[in-house]
Amino acid sequence: MDIKEFFRNDRFAMEAGIKLTDVRPGYSKAEMTLTPDHMNAGGTTQGGAIFTLADLALAAAANSHGKLALSLDASIHFFLPSKPGDTLTAEAKEKHVHKRTGYYQVEIKNQNGELVACFDTTVYRKDTELPFCLNH
Amino acid sequence: MDIKEFFRNDRFAMEAGIKLTDVRPGYSKAEMTLTPDHMNAGGTTQGGAIFTLADLALAAAANSHGKLALSLDASIHFFLPSKPGDTLTAEAKEKHVHKRTGYYQVEIKNQNGELVACFDTTVYRKDTELPFCLNH
Amino acid sequence: MDIKEFFRNDRFAMEAGIKLTDVRPGYSKAEMTLTPDHMNAGGTTQGGAIFTLADLALAAAANSHGKLALSLDASIHFFLPSKPGDTLTAEAKEKHVHKRTGYYQVEIKNQNGELVACFDTTVYRKDTELPFCLNH
Amino acid sequence: MDIKEFFRNDRFAMEAGIKLTDVRPGYSKAEMTLTPDHMNAGGTTQGGAIFTLADLALAAAANSHGKLALSLDASIHFFLPSKPGDTLTAEAKEKHVHKRTGYYQVEIKNQNGELVACFDTTVYRKDTELPFCLNH
Repeated sequence: MDIKEFFRNDRFAMEAGIKLTDVRPGYSKAEMTLTPDHMNAGGTTQGGAIFTLADLALAAAANSHGKLALSLDASIHFFLPSKPGDTLTAEAKEKHVHKRTGYYQVEIKNQNGELVACFDTTVYRKDTELPFCLNH
Repeated sequence: MDIKEFFRNDRFAMEAGIKLTDVRPGYSKAEMTLTPDHMNAGGTTQGGAIFTLADLALAAAANSHGKLALSLDASIHFFLPSKPGDTLTAEAKEKHVHKRTGYYQVEIKNQNGELVACFDTTVYRKDTELPFCLNH
Repeated sequence: MDIKEFFRNDRFAMEAGIKLTDVRPGYSKAEMTLTPDHMNAGGTTQGGAIFTLADLALAAAANSHGKLALSLDASIHFFLPSKPGDTLTAEAKEKHVHKRTGYYQVEIKNQNGELVACFDTTVYRKDTELPFCLNH
Repeated sequence: MDIKEFFRNDRFAMEAGIKLTDVRPGYSKAEMTLTPDHMNAGGTTQGGAIFTLADLALAAAANSHGKLALSLDASIHFFLPSKPGDTLTAEAKEKHVHKRTGYYQVEIKNQNGELVACFDTTVYRKDTELPFCLNH
């Protein structure tokens, strides 16, 4: 199974219109074009929508080694508002990986390349084998 | 306008099936009953769905004073998996509030009262008046 | 060996004048009386001094079960300044513990009971046995 | 007054043997050579010592614009242990700056260039003028 196909089973991310556009070992990119359905009561993008975009990118990068990685915790810092019509891109990079834990940073930018948010997460790596592996 | 009515304009949270059940000054509660649409590729609840639930509770608590509060950053720690049919409840409490900033902690529990996740956030408080105020 | 005696080997915390005052399973308290040596260039307590106080309390609570627990990450939120002569108390509580991981929250208050900072951390629990155990 | 001279008033960082080695607008570098006094009860570097190193680098970068910046919160992720004799270098970079808030990331490496920890922080920027400014 292809890893992008695997993550199409992430129904919450699919409902939010998120697409994985690139996955390599310890790296991934995802994008989301904003609609009125991503907005909060203040009329800007809900933090949860941006978190979900970052989380899918993180999950693809962290699971790219073929073993199940689960988030222990995640943080997100918000810088710029966004609105319907904008396209947000999340790029996840592995900063550190150990037998049992890993740390990833994700930058979320808009279509003008401006930094909208930064996300980072610590994962726990289980022995469970996933139905794909990008490391050759 | 009632504060619960105001937050029904949070379309991303509404799409996720989240309901505010209680709002008082510096405090709020929200809940979400899980369906297959909240799941990730691993078959447990997407972190972004839990984040969105916590974020709506936080937003109601932080905006309850009638001035616009925006999240600068937020962290979430995950403890227990959950699945379709479970009901998650998020309870937000104000730990500290200053003229310009505030800090809130949110506990997310399942229907058995077990702690599923902890969320916390720092907000920036603008001078913008909101169309409601719970402080008398 | 007594757990308080074990933590007197924390030389950085000892140099900072930190004392463990209470340790029970999943719980601990530590305190530090501030001197000019704890101040930063702005004349208030250095964030690192408050972090160290919270970290010692966390370490005692997380290691109270007799197995080595290491911090994977920690966050601290600052609310009130403090100054020489103030006494800060950190109280650590276990919010969640699993075979391999644990999550702890620490509240730091001054001598008037005002909340100065909140700290939280995720630990990884190794199999290494410590020379003490508070669980009977 | 020179900015490096100003930060020599950070007595907690000075006691820990930390030196600012480079400061430019939105950027700084600091270093600390480890001694037995930086160790914790487990015999590796106390998290608070690494936090203090990162915090001084952050403070220099965030205050380099000549206005007082205060940390609202900070997070640190630990990857590798270190020991007496090692030299740790912290490099702080400004990721985002706004009228009232800023966000900084700090990487802490050992003398072999290995990543020991990542630190990030959100600051609040006051109107208070500092006795120096690096922006021309």
